[in-house]
Amino acid sequence: MFDDLDVVITEVALRDGSHAVSHSFTEEQVRNVVGALDKARVPYIEVSHGDGLGGSTLQYGLSKVDEFKLIQAAVETAEFSKIAVLLLPGIGTVHELRRARELGASLVRVATHVTEADVSAQHIHEARKMGLTTFGFLMMSHMAPIEKLVEQAKLMESYGAEAVYMTDSAGALLPDQVYERITALKEALNVEVGFHAHNNLGLAMGNTLEAIRAGATRIDGSIRSLGAGAGNTQTEVLAAVLEKKGIRTGIDLYNIMDAAEDVVAPLLKSPQEITKDSLTMGYAGVYSSFQLHAKRAGEKYDVDPRDILIELGKQKVVGGQEDMILDVAKRMAE
Amino acid sequence: MFDDLDVVITEVALRDGSHAVSHSFTEEQVRNVVGALDKARVPYIEVSHGDGLGGSTLQYGLSKVDEFKLIQAAVETAEFSKIAVLLLPGIGTVHELRRARELGASLVRVATHVTEADVSAQHIHEARKMGLTTFGFLMMSHMAPIEKLVEQAKLMESYGAEAVYMTDSAGALLPDQVYERITALKEALNVEVGFHAHNNLGLAMGNTLEAIRAGATRIDGSIRSLGAGAGNTQTEVLAAVLEKKGIRTGIDLYNIMDAAEDVVAPLLKSPQEITKDSLTMGYAGVYSSFQLHAKRAGEKYDVDPRDILIELGKQKVVGGQEDMILDVAKRMAE
Repeated sequence: MFDDLDVVITEVALRDGSHAVSHSFTEEQVRNVVGALDKARVPYIEVSHGDGLGGSTLQYGLSKVDEFKLIQAAVETAEFSKIAVLLLPGIGTVHELRRARELGASLVRVATHVTEADVSAQHIHEARKMGLTTFGFLMMSHMAPIEKLVEQAKLMESYGAEAVYMTDSAGALLPDQVYERITALKEALNVEVGFHAHNNLGLAMGNTLEAIRAGATRIDGSIRSLGAGAGNTQTEVLAAVLEKKGIRTGIDLYNIMDAAEDVVAPLLKSPQEITKDSLTMGYAGVYSSFQLHAKRAGEKYDVDPRDILIELGKQKVVGGQEDMILDVAKRMAE
Repeated sequence: MFDDLDVVITEVALRDGSHAVSHSFTEEQVRNVVGALDKARVPYIEVSHGDGLGGSTLQYGLSKVDEFKLIQAAVETAEFSKIAVLLLPGIGTVHELRRARELGASLVRVATHVTEADVSAQHIHEARKMGLTTFGFLMMSHMAPIEKLVEQAKLMESYGAEAVYMTDSAGALLPDQVYERITALKEALNVEVGFHAHNNLGLAMGNTLEAIRAGATRIDGSIRSLGAGAGNTQTEVLAAVLEKKGIRTGIDLYNIMDAAEDVVAPLLKSPQEITKDSLTMGYAGVYSSFQLHAKRAGEKYDVDPRDILIELGKQKVVGGQEDMILDVAKRMAE
């Protein structure tokens, strides 16, 4: 599949971009976006709640429309493109994955925190048994030293992942770090290596080029930067840059540009830009969900929330450890 | 001056950003922005019409407020920062430069098309005589082969320029090209080398890091990306990235972030993003002023305006040659 391409792009606007529109995608929107992406011959289109299958909860944000209806709309619309889903073990289940498969999804990316690849074993096994193309997805990858990242990627490969992505969830990595890490993954793995960027430090495109230079062949883009935080690598811009470099993506440049301008731009609540909040996330290297907690803690203890977030980044605090935010703020105030 | 810094940043929002707000800056806006940048200890702040001193004309767009009033407001407001102006020989004159100097401007950048450095000789001489710090600024630098770029930069140095900038006016260069070109300039020149990026291909930050890696020590930024086209390297993001890398800019990170969010963001007519038009400019490597002509020519001859712009880029058509656009379209239709 897509053997004639140098780099295989997965469009994530209908999954990662779900965060940017408060999970409000409708079936009509999905049909329009998928139709336009399909016309531009985008290989894979990911459709799921922003936090993956089963993410529609009070904790992660309720979807306006059941994601299975959106997946079905995407499958029915796409003639060329394949439909992908994201699954975070602990949020989504094998049962939900099977439903997505039955509806016609072809690819699943099983995602874990960069140090927790072991929780993906069962889901990767089951996905392979269902006949899905199955990739691993290591999130917040800047938090682990290279050796740990490589070890965890090898675990995913051993479970049956057919490619492993390094995911820069906070947009915190610099180009030389991306090059070094992707190079290490390429050396250690027998399967393909992928890269998923965020633009919090303005480096989504620069980092993506470094990943490709280091050998990554699976790349994520979000059209018109419709992704969480400051957005991802902008798909239509990536298509243009790679065409300039003679790297084959199979994407029709004019059609993807038109899709961005005419179909996707009108969906954005506001254009994607690097704001104080998204820059702080990238600089500190923490989850965006920490922002509100840090603001509250900062007010309570009269500490700049940015100082709190930077300290949380240094301590490599992860999702689920929000209790630590008040402790950190209190200690800083003392 | 600024000898303790690794990289000296010039903020161009009040000059390059003038394009993005149709040259509508008021004295109050300039005072607010300069005050916030000054508090963040930005070394240089450029204040001029978008096309440099004297640019307020029907051809280039009339300024709402006389640029000398804006320069005066900037000089009166700044306590730490130095005020810079841009001068394009043929648009601005030595007379106007003298007025800016008398008002308190410290730095001038004398700008020419990348192949026309010879027209800067007199203006660089005169600027030096006035006691201005005087830099050369080679625009649309992607249009010249490296040897030509180096030759033209050496001309500017020979006229007395104390630094020469490579300006990627269309945001058309890729990171490896930037590295190669800045390296060649560093090898050939005895004066400092600068870099001015645009974000049309999403590479303003990635290219800027490559320029610094190759030895550039003068870098332009525009706060909140308030610049022409898709904007420039976003100053507050650049400050964060360079702080992460341990490269000293002297800029106070929290203050520049606050300036962007609280003072500059409200001035933007709409947030900066990479649109179909700005992407086309970067991909084709042509002036933004060609866009409207190409659209009209495309309608007349039933050719996609993007094909016309790409052809104009290949032929290295420059400003003032707009007559060629219809010819090119006609030939393509045949």
